[in-house]
Amino acid sequence: MKAWEANVRRVEPYVPGEQPRGDRLIKLNTNENPYPPAPGVAWVLHELDAAALRKYPDPTATALVQCLAEHYGVGEDQVFVGVGSDDVIAMAFLTFFHSGKPILFPDVTYSFYPVWAKLFDIPYRTPALDAGFRICPQDYYGDNGGIIFPNPNAPTGILMPLEQIEEIVRRNPSVIVIVDEAYIDFGGTSAIRLVERYDNLLVVQTFSKSRAMAGMRIGYAIGQPELIQALCDVKFSFNSYTMNATSLALGVEAVKDEAYFCETTAKIIRTRERAKEQLRELGFSFPDSSANFIFASHERVPAGELFEALRQNQIYVRYFNQPRLNNYLRISVGTDEEMDALFAFLKEYLWKA
Amino acid sequence: MKAWEANVRRVEPYVPGEQPRGDRLIKLNTNENPYPPAPGVAWVLHELDAAALRKYPDPTATALVQCLAEHYGVGEDQVFVGVGSDDVIAMAFLTFFHSGKPILFPDVTYSFYPVWAKLFDIPYRTPALDAGFRICPQDYYGDNGGIIFPNPNAPTGILMPLEQIEEIVRRNPSVIVIVDEAYIDFGGTSAIRLVERYDNLLVVQTFSKSRAMAGMRIGYAIGQPELIQALCDVKFSFNSYTMNATSLALGVEAVKDEAYFCETTAKIIRTRERAKEQLRELGFSFPDSSANFIFASHERVPAGELFEALRQNQIYVRYFNQPRLNNYLRISVGTDEEMDALFAFLKEYLWKA
Repeated sequence: MKAWEANVRRVEPYVPGEQPRGDRLIKLNTNENPYPPAPGVAWVLHELDAAALRKYPDPTATALVQCLAEHYGVGEDQVFVGVGSDDVIAMAFLTFFHSGKPILFPDVTYSFYPVWAKLFDIPYRTPALDAGFRICPQDYYGDNGGIIFPNPNAPTGILMPLEQIEEIVRRNPSVIVIVDEAYIDFGGTSAIRLVERYDNLLVVQTFSKSRAMAGMRIGYAIGQPELIQALCDVKFSFNSYTMNATSLALGVEAVKDEAYFCETTAKIIRTRERAKEQLRELGFSFPDSSANFIFASHERVPAGELFEALRQNQIYVRYFNQPRLNNYLRISVGTDEEMDALFAFLKEYLWKA
Repeated sequence: MKAWEANVRRVEPYVPGEQPRGDRLIKLNTNENPYPPAPGVAWVLHELDAAALRKYPDPTATALVQCLAEHYGVGEDQVFVGVGSDDVIAMAFLTFFHSGKPILFPDVTYSFYPVWAKLFDIPYRTPALDAGFRICPQDYYGDNGGIIFPNPNAPTGILMPLEQIEEIVRRNPSVIVIVDEAYIDFGGTSAIRLVERYDNLLVVQTFSKSRAMAGMRIGYAIGQPELIQALCDVKFSFNSYTMNATSLALGVEAVKDEAYFCETTAKIIRTRERAKEQLRELGFSFPDSSANFIFASHERVPAGELFEALRQNQIYVRYFNQPRLNNYLRISVGTDEEMDALFAFLKEYLWKA
């Protein structure tokens, strides 16, 4: 052991999904959008002035904050932006989960939550989902140090109705409730509309899914000004200039083009609904997804085997080798063509298996 | 007071230098490079494929890591990259300063160090610089929880000779010593050459100064593989995908063009040396700077007054209204033309004052 090792923080890091590269593979493993970003993103990208990159970007990210505030009909002092929603949520853990009491999140959920809790020495409890993989709201009514859950939940895709969310927020006035809406644009109603009534609610969204910009790393949170101020203070104590010049410029374009956004999310929803039918025909069952992925289990063939077979055929889906999840595949919704290729392969494979 | 406020982390954030916008102002306040990034940055920027932004970037930032490793003649497992050196240093604080013992950094130095220490509840002590604003190496020989200092130091610009750095590293085998080399390319010798001999040394650099890419937010650290691994583990526990697709692509170009890098840093050094002569003639004194800024005090006119007068004339420099620093201006080295405009103004102002 090195002399300095005893002084070093030891963590078990989050393991991101594989990022295989290549043009011929079908990548349905990290819930990316199968369509490119709004056309304005390409125009602005090619007009950017490289010489201006010598200067620091705007640390307050005003242009992006303004356009998000306008889009959601909230004040500019109600918007916080970060390097993907992971950065936003990491900052929120550091800022709001500081009571020493255990925070709460579901046992089956985004697997980064326990990683952040461990990193920042935040105690936590994980109420179990019910037999149908649903979050039980009453598990979140007791004394706690804060609450976070995705809506729709991951990797199940199940949406919690807004009334249940409101009830959780209402019953927890002395802690912050974070609703992680990475997938909300694929069929849910955002809790942003509750923000004006609850000063303890923070809603987090991302550009990585519905806005097709995973490569640019942009996430944001919306809440009442006091929450946003506390978050900004911690952010400015960590890294003052997180959003680079290109993110700021391209992010604005992705928000502005509402028509393109509606068109592509509608296409993804249509493909998802078609995929549900096809998966059912192939003998899969799954919780009803409101996200851009389906969490499916086959009646006969183990998920681990299917995962490997797909992978060998250059079709990547996500497999979680963990108790309760290890007979499921999380399949991102791609284009119709990508899904057809997936189903053609599965049909043949399952017929032989 | 809101019900949740008691549970929230309260911090006094770092205050970044102003980022005034406008074409006609002379911006000498945040140590940016007065020259644009290498020409290859513009070419690559305009060839980027916007459609590819729908996908996550490479979480291991391999292309950038590879090119830095090659440039510095170290292994790829010896390079860590982050969103500016602030992100790299924040991660290093979180990773390496975990012993509970006070860490050490100079009393006059980069003002973000105490902010990170407070944010992460890391105790610290700040040995005073000597009367000539120099770091006293012997102050760093006692028991401690880790050490960090910039070389050259900020805002003084004073370079510590490599033998003194080596002695500090050698005498502290059980803690990590971080040398923050944001300004090293303007006249110092990097401690990177010591990395192969010391497993407790981490050297941090940035693309924001000598590589003229403050707008892209790229920083990096070089150390032995065990240190880099520990840093990566914490980073992957915080935000797996920090470097966006444009940073990765443009960063590589900035490293590749060695000729441009040498030419622009040499120009900045020449302008700085000329500026020292002119400042002396105008009645300023200053520690001898090896950085791209000069920390200067006038024999007669208070720094606060000069700062305001300059500002009113659209010339921005940095002023720290703190004990011991409040009669100094930190003047970034701009182009010769910008410096001439500064000196012309000062000459007239000081003649009247």
